Amino acid sequence: MSHRIVVALGGNALGSNLPEQMAAVKITARAIVDLIEEGNEVVIVHGNGPQVGMIANAMAELTRSDPERYIPCPLSVCGAMSQGYIGYDLQNALREEMLDRGMDKGVATVLTQIQVDPNDAAFARPTKPIGPFMSEAEAEELERDRGYAFMHDAQKGYRRVVASPKPVSIVELDTISSLVAANHVVVCCGGGGIPVVPTEGHHLKGAAAVIDKDFAAEKLAEQLDADALIILTAVEKVAVGFGTEREQWLDELSAARARELAEAGEFGEGSMKPKVEACVAFVESGEGRTALITLLERARDGIAGKTGTHIVR
Amino acid sequence: MSHRIVVALGGNALGSNLPEQMAAVKITARAIVDLIEEGNEVVIVHGNGPQVGMIANAMAELTRSDPERYIPCPLSVCGAMSQGYIGYDLQNALREEMLDRGMDKGVATVLTQIQVDPNDAAFARPTKPIGPFMSEAEAEELERDRGYAFMHDAQKGYRRVVASPKPVSIVELDTISSLVAANHVVVCCGGGGIPVVPTEGHHLKGAAAVIDKDFAAEKLAEQLDADALIILTAVEKVAVGFGTEREQWLDELSAARARELAEAGEFGEGSMKPKVEACVAFVESGEGRTALITLLERARDGIAGKTGTHIVR
Repeated sequence: MSHRIVVALGGNALGSNLPEQMAAVKITARAIVDLIEEGNEVVIVHGNGPQVGMIANAMAELTRSDPERYIPCPLSVCGAMSQGYIGYDLQNALREEMLDRGMDKGVATVLTQIQVDPNDAAFARPTKPIGPFMSEAEAEELERDRGYAFMHDAQKGYRRVVASPKPVSIVELDTISSLVAANHVVVCCGGGGIPVVPTEGHHLKGAAAVIDKDFAAEKLAEQLDADALIILTAVEKVAVGFGTEREQWLDELSAARARELAEAGEFGEGSMKPKVEACVAFVESGEGRTALITLLERARDGIAGKTGTHIVR
Repeated sequence: MSHRIVVALGGNALGSNLPEQMAAVKITARAIVDLIEEGNEVVIVHGNGPQVGMIANAMAELTRSDPERYIPCPLSVCGAMSQGYIGYDLQNALREEMLDRGMDKGVATVLTQIQVDPNDAAFARPTKPIGPFMSEAEAEELERDRGYAFMHDAQKGYRRVVASPKPVSIVELDTISSLVAANHVVVCCGGGGIPVVPTEGHHLKGAAAVIDKDFAAEKLAEQLDADALIILTAVEKVAVGFGTEREQWLDELSAARARELAEAGEFGEGSMKPKVEACVAFVESGEGRTALITLLERARDGIAGKTGTHIVR
């Protein structure tokens, strides 16, 4: 049976530098083309933590080397570059894997922006570290000149932190939707999408923020009227009591129970918790919507109901 | 009357750093939305010289800062990043300008690769300088380890040069075509497209090369069955005897005459010559196809026949 599926890929599916990425996307492409081969419409959202970090570091080195000519590069711009960087390798790996299996479908990377609410409470407490460590003097200068916020690590120095607001709406939804209708595999919302806020007139301003890619995938799945949200990660199933004597791996979880467990602190902040929350939000957003969390390599078995943690209404 | 138009934008339409680009795209968007407002389907191809240079410099600084961790970044990957970087600002300026005029159309940036012929004679004589100047020792190491070619400037040192092969076919043509059919304004083939060559199986390998963006736009116009190719640049018309006593600005030029003049050396290598050659190739590729070279700011008057140099069959 054919479904429309939004797949969210973690950083581990992409590697943290160029050679790692080229190797990782081959394995990722196999897992995803398994889903496409079964007749599903697949849209792919990916993280960009290590990649946007690399690009932000490179742009910071450029500014250091020639500060007269190059102002610090906004995070939104680094994000746009990372979508090109990752999309290029990922779409090629998908194209190649499909052609190797005799499948002829278009593959496209769509530059994607996602509107966030400028009054999102997350902007008041930036928590997500990005870019290079720097000295106190460098940090102070950027704080004064550009309003950056910093965290301090006793060993490594100062590192910029940004907010992680919730996604509100996907600016390029119509583009993504048109390409899915035209039988394309679409790579989009890279790194959770470039976060933008509406300003004067019709201008969208890039926000110094990072949207969690699992929440971005959830929003996209809702807005595309997908049947399923699949979050592929480094573990096969979700556990309660993870790492303790009462550890228990879960096959199925109702949305209500999942929310209870999340609120009780069962899932790691910034790792499993947002994944479970994204799944809950999706299954509760409409009839017949299901969600799955599993290992990248077990994606096909997961949608066949053989493994993974299924979140149901 | 509605036409399908491929517009090629030069580097001067984009600026050479972040603040310049943000200002330049506003002016560029006005000129392009003029064409869209008259009912034309518009697809935009842009250069990336200064932008990919900036990114290549940044990635080179990153490698210098941590050579253990970061290998030199291939030019194809820098090109993919530059498509994200430029597309982000350009599509937003287009979106904003259209909404300001009450027009509601999708705008999309499509990551684009273009196949080139690995036997293209251009690969035997790389001529296009890219990235930073470096010392003789650095250049020798890259020549030995990675097979890079270099040019030498007595004052500034060594700089990498790459080939500029002709475009053969656009890998994402179906994506671009689907989006045009879905009433989108499409930004694609950035920097002339990422040049790729077919290798074993179905793999496409990024080539260390730069495709001229005017030739890329010509190929796209052909493959999209466009009515017109418009090359927007820093002069209002093409001249013969440019800068001499016999200087004459041209309103209309037959393809045959344009070719004669190009062969006679009337147009600057690497500047006006490829533009004229691209126009000749396009008008000769099919019935009813026209081409125009003019100033960005005169685009609307140009297609109304009031200015610019029109190349006709």
